[in-house]
Amino acid sequence: MSVFVQKYGGTSVGTTEKIKAVADKVAGFRDAGHDMVVVVSAMSGETNRLISLASDMQQDPDPREMDVLVSTGEQVTIALLCMALKAKGYDARSYTGTQVRILTDDAHTKARIQDIDVANMRADLDAGRVVVVAGFQGVDEDGNITTLGRGGSDTTGVALAAALKADECQIYTDVDGVYTTDPRVVDGARRLNQITFEEMLEMASLGSKVLQIRAVEFAGKYNVPLRVLSTFTDGPGTLITLDEGQDSMEQPVVSGIAFNRDEAKISILGVPDMPGVASKVLAPIGDANVEIDVIVQNIAADNTNDLTFTVHRNDMGKAQAVLQEVAKDLGAREIVADDKIAKVSIVGVGMRSHAGVASTMFKALAAENINIRMITTSEIKISVIIDEKYLELAVRALHSAFGLEK
Amino acid sequence: MSVFVQKYGGTSVGTTEKIKAVADKVAGFRDAGHDMVVVVSAMSGETNRLISLASDMQQDPDPREMDVLVSTGEQVTIALLCMALKAKGYDARSYTGTQVRILTDDAHTKARIQDIDVANMRADLDAGRVVVVAGFQGVDEDGNITTLGRGGSDTTGVALAAALKADECQIYTDVDGVYTTDPRVVDGARRLNQITFEEMLEMASLGSKVLQIRAVEFAGKYNVPLRVLSTFTDGPGTLITLDEGQDSMEQPVVSGIAFNRDEAKISILGVPDMPGVASKVLAPIGDANVEIDVIVQNIAADNTNDLTFTVHRNDMGKAQAVLQEVAKDLGAREIVADDKIAKVSIVGVGMRSHAGVASTMFKALAAENINIRMITTSEIKISVIIDEKYLELAVRALHSAFGLEK
Repeated sequence: MSVFVQKYGGTSVGTTEKIKAVADKVAGFRDAGHDMVVVVSAMSGETNRLISLASDMQQDPDPREMDVLVSTGEQVTIALLCMALKAKGYDARSYTGTQVRILTDDAHTKARIQDIDVANMRADLDAGRVVVVAGFQGVDEDGNITTLGRGGSDTTGVALAAALKADECQIYTDVDGVYTTDPRVVDGARRLNQITFEEMLEMASLGSKVLQIRAVEFAGKYNVPLRVLSTFTDGPGTLITLDEGQDSMEQPVVSGIAFNRDEAKISILGVPDMPGVASKVLAPIGDANVEIDVIVQNIAADNTNDLTFTVHRNDMGKAQAVLQEVAKDLGAREIVADDKIAKVSIVGVGMRSHAGVASTMFKALAAENINIRMITTSEIKISVIIDEKYLELAVRALHSAFGLEK
Repeated sequence: MSVFVQKYGGTSVGTTEKIKAVADKVAGFRDAGHDMVVVVSAMSGETNRLISLASDMQQDPDPREMDVLVSTGEQVTIALLCMALKAKGYDARSYTGTQVRILTDDAHTKARIQDIDVANMRADLDAGRVVVVAGFQGVDEDGNITTLGRGGSDTTGVALAAALKADECQIYTDVDGVYTTDPRVVDGARRLNQITFEEMLEMASLGSKVLQIRAVEFAGKYNVPLRVLSTFTDGPGTLITLDEGQDSMEQPVVSGIAFNRDEAKISILGVPDMPGVASKVLAPIGDANVEIDVIVQNIAADNTNDLTFTVHRNDMGKAQAVLQEVAKDLGAREIVADDKIAKVSIVGVGMRSHAGVASTMFKALAAENINIRMITTSEIKISVIIDEKYLELAVRALHSAFGLEK
């Protein structure tokens, strides 16, 4: 008898038939004797429908009213799922964010959870009821409805699991787990049985869009075992935990290969060398609300600086415009931009204790004649920027070089 | 400076364009300096869409979850109306039934209002905000969402007006007031400037479907001045009040002519005369959940009873079947049923103080050769059952006989 919090996203509850399938799944866990708390999103398409109504009314819709509006999406799903469970003979009760009392701050459309009242849920579980909770929403101190921002249902699931000290928070989605890399790129990509929160954060922020980063952070902070698994197929999924696993001695050095083609590279060349150059170049970019990812600085032979950084591809034009001004002030020689690049990263907590990981990576890329344009490293990750056209080749080469096919 | 509670029904808020038109109307009242509380229904079609989702899930959907589901309809409208008001530069705040705190009993899908907390609304009005409230919904003591049943938004409007001691509760609908009779039947039908609650109740229950009976009763009980007017055209509408109006000396004897073609007449003939016959005949009909409207009993020349009553046309077959059994037990001679009848009524508080109203009515019908099949009277109403084919003729004759064209 365990306590499970399960979260089903919009595509998992996209039709009344799919909601019935979720009820079947939940019923199976009840039959096995588990206490079940189920968090659901709005039916797929519903949130967008509501947002489009709002934009008909007001150019920049009022955030408080936006939350009143979009929170109805999950409210519909919780009622329908409870009906489906009752139709199958299982007792169930639905809760909006207000009803649970998921207390948040008052930052409408991007509220943060502050406290969760578990009394009602606990009483229902003790009475043998399935508890069904609307994801993505809460209530502030004054009774105003708030929402956690898009994808916030994952966060709701993790937060409920933490508050209830659940045995596991299970995130049901349309993939059956976290993979060593994207199976569409590498045939031999393999589902991982286990991965650490840190690795998952690096994988997620690098483009493996399985889980909301915020939910993973939250799970890590409160040490909630998190499992990603498929709504539509059976299987153990991937467990995300604090530890490296009982078999950590045999853990591979690298757990996965992440990649991202949303970036563009900008270089400002021939900047006279003096203290504070990097800040003089990058501060105006930040002021223009452009996020910077990788940064590399070199001193050239003529004692001038070359500074290169990457931004989101959509922001390249904006960043270039800002840099023109800066370049004039600093007396820089030239600005060069390139949006035909990609980032490839190897991720793994095993790196910490293994030397030679970087050289294995660089050797594998060199063997394929792939030129590395930039390099950046963290404790559990090494990323390289390469020409976009080599992306698939690089991912396959690295997947093989680190033996991830198993 | 008055406090007005306005209620807009589903067709008045059926599209985003129509919601903007409601915002325009409300803005006009704000500009005139009035404090505004606006109650809205779900956008037309939305409640039916939600009910249909529910019936996909469970044959007889759980009432608690049904309320969670359908209450989202009004929640969407309040948010959109607030956005529309804000887009026009007016401050506004939306409230669900839970947020106002409209406390009800726990009779899901047909809850009764017990108490309304006006503190938040009062503070908003004092701050110059338009208060927008979801109609049709409340919350029970345990925080469960409840609904008042279909048409309950009228009741919400009246209840808020009573709690806030508003100057008027204005029900906006698709007709521009209460008429002396149906304008589709009588060309000269005239909008009434004023009518009493009692008259309105008789008119409403007789088929003038302008207002929910329950809302009228509620308004009468708490003496809330109620005004029916059109969302789509300007005009004073019809004011419904406790008094007969300042000019009651000149009030007409009869205020309106109501009619109804939904009834059928059933007679049980030749029942031996003995005490308790009426109850022996009618109790089984009630037991079969058939409502009886008009009842007439006569003693025939041979000392047997003829008992005639009317039921809803849809229930005629059911009532006949029940009566076959009863007739056998009582030794009655015959059962006769007729669904080609109609009921026509004259309504007016002026009747109380005027003799000869009935004879004017009967004379007018006789002049048109219309045979009266049954008669029933109350303090402010006289109803007759006639052949359905004479209905329009009878209504026109009475409308003219009582000078309702003005």
